[in-house]
Amino acid sequence: MDGLFRDGVVRLSGNARQQFYDSGGYGRPAGGSDLELAPVEAAHLLYRGDLEAVEDAESGASMGFREFLTRTDAVLSFVVYKDLRDRGFYLSPARDGWVDDGVDDETDFVVYPRGKGPADDEIEHRLRVVGERAPLPAASIDGHVLAVVDEDGELTYFGTDWLSPSGSADPSLPDDLDATLMDDRLLVWEPPESLYEGGFFGQRLAGRNADSGPLQLSLLEAAYLAERGCLDVDAETVSRHAETVEGERFDRRYAAYATLREAGAVPKSGFKFGADFRVYEAFDGLADLGHSDKLVRVVEPDHAFLPRELSLDVRLAGGVRKRMVFALTEPTDGIDWLSVERITP
Amino acid sequence: MDGLFRDGVVRLSGNARQQFYDSGGYGRPAGGSDLELAPVEAAHLLYRGDLEAVEDAESGASMGFREFLTRTDAVLSFVVYKDLRDRGFYLSPARDGWVDDGVDDETDFVVYPRGKGPADDEIEHRLRVVGERAPLPAASIDGHVLAVVDEDGELTYFGTDWLSPSGSADPSLPDDLDATLMDDRLLVWEPPESLYEGGFFGQRLAGRNADSGPLQLSLLEAAYLAERGCLDVDAETVSRHAETVEGERFDRRYAAYATLREAGAVPKSGFKFGADFRVYEAFDGLADLGHSDKLVRVVEPDHAFLPRELSLDVRLAGGVRKRMVFALTEPTDGIDWLSVERITP
Repeated sequence: MDGLFRDGVVRLSGNARQQFYDSGGYGRPAGGSDLELAPVEAAHLLYRGDLEAVEDAESGASMGFREFLTRTDAVLSFVVYKDLRDRGFYLSPARDGWVDDGVDDETDFVVYPRGKGPADDEIEHRLRVVGERAPLPAASIDGHVLAVVDEDGELTYFGTDWLSPSGSADPSLPDDLDATLMDDRLLVWEPPESLYEGGFFGQRLAGRNADSGPLQLSLLEAAYLAERGCLDVDAETVSRHAETVEGERFDRRYAAYATLREAGAVPKSGFKFGADFRVYEAFDGLADLGHSDKLVRVVEPDHAFLPRELSLDVRLAGGVRKRMVFALTEPTDGIDWLSVERITP
Repeated sequence: MDGLFRDGVVRLSGNARQQFYDSGGYGRPAGGSDLELAPVEAAHLLYRGDLEAVEDAESGASMGFREFLTRTDAVLSFVVYKDLRDRGFYLSPARDGWVDDGVDDETDFVVYPRGKGPADDEIEHRLRVVGERAPLPAASIDGHVLAVVDEDGELTYFGTDWLSPSGSADPSLPDDLDATLMDDRLLVWEPPESLYEGGFFGQRLAGRNADSGPLQLSLLEAAYLAERGCLDVDAETVSRHAETVEGERFDRRYAAYATLREAGAVPKSGFKFGADFRVYEAFDGLADLGHSDKLVRVVEPDHAFLPRELSLDVRLAGGVRKRMVFALTEPTDGIDWLSVERITP
């Protein structure tokens, strides 16, 4: 069977609808037995040999797989489309009028559940095809699956989701502790047991093997505790000092830190993982400390992810069995918590 | 024993030299039995109770540990100094005139081999103390151990080294292959077996399970092969196209890619690890492919690392048992290969 390529669509007649749509999940019915195919679908049929050639309506030329792919420049889409078909999925290009109106503009393909197809009206994934060099605005990611084609042509899939922070920590906070702001931290000279052991605030000045003595608090911890009257240093002084040390990033990170603490989670430095925070959700005192559950990176709401940066963060988090979460944070407004993980469709 | 603090140095007399220098590795002999201590050394002795107080020569005030630390603001150094002493090392602040002239200005402490001290004239590490917020110019890192104190006061040590790329790959390159430049890659329609299986150039267009058919080459691979006459597309055309797609970063990355290939290593996309390249050093054809050995990130020679970014890269590489290497690359000049790994002193 041959097709006719005109205005970005390949049109098939004969028994095309039965052969390719009903039993293969390709294209969109175009009246009677006719079928319209997006270029990537036609390329796939040409590659398989199910279509022999496509005629170019303009020039009359007959195109095989190579000529058609070159003409339509659909390599990236082809790589993704073929991979998902190989994995047993049917999927349709999310062209205007081809899929439900409910599908957003960012979506490139709708992927149906295994065993279902375009006639079934059920969507498993809204998929975006992303080259590894294209920046991805955080605000544009909304539950999509991202299919990133790297420069070698290898595919990585990321699933995305919105989360809310939660946790079981409920530390009792002290009053008016004797503290000194120094360098980029704050020292508490005679901390009560509850502060470190019960709330996981600070770190022993004398190192990890010390079980008593002064605590060093990060500026975030200091600001949080000062604001709650726990220190004899006032909150304003801490914030001003912190902004001197860290600039405007401090306010953004503080908003995320305080929101996590208020939700009962315990955020600690994520430095060893290259993140802002590692977060413990189940927390009932240091004696029973398990592994942290999430890594959080604080970004501006209008941040654009480079796919390679995303890959770095998500891969690291996966390797240490934590969930990577991006906190899209305005210093004074609400925070959106975007979870990204590597998936195998 | 008490000390006298003047001009940034604590001076001890009595039998100080015997007690603290000869048997404890503290300070610098100052004639007779006298000893000079850097503030961090005095803080450590005060913390341990080996010194009871230090007198401020200016005000006459007697300072205990807390007052002395507050006065000298030496928290970061104290945290590192104490940690290394706890680990069984003696170390000396690398002050002008206190250590060998051969020690560079970037060094904060010289650390002696375990069991040795300042009198032994043998150095194990040149150590830099780094806050997590201070950018580290790549050019300033020269075999130092970096001790990063994160905002929670936890310590991470990075060892650094210079490397030269090497490898065992020796692919035979084809001539004048039929190829088409498309989008951000190049397609080779009828590749000889040797190109992919023998040289690990490209990736099957039809995905990882395909064992024949067209290859997609990255723009780096395309430029490298075009320059060697392997393609029927000329090198100039590929480079110009690549610069359109990737900007000036392309030339820098290409310099690193070509240098690795020429050294017999096989660089492939490092996207899944968030790096520029993963590199196979032992390579004798795809059939025997092992794990890649190194991850390479290409940076400008005047790049300044944020310690947190460094931590992210190095942690990821460590987690997948690869060595993290930064290629400090001028597009047209030589390349310095800086290896960074997490160490436990």
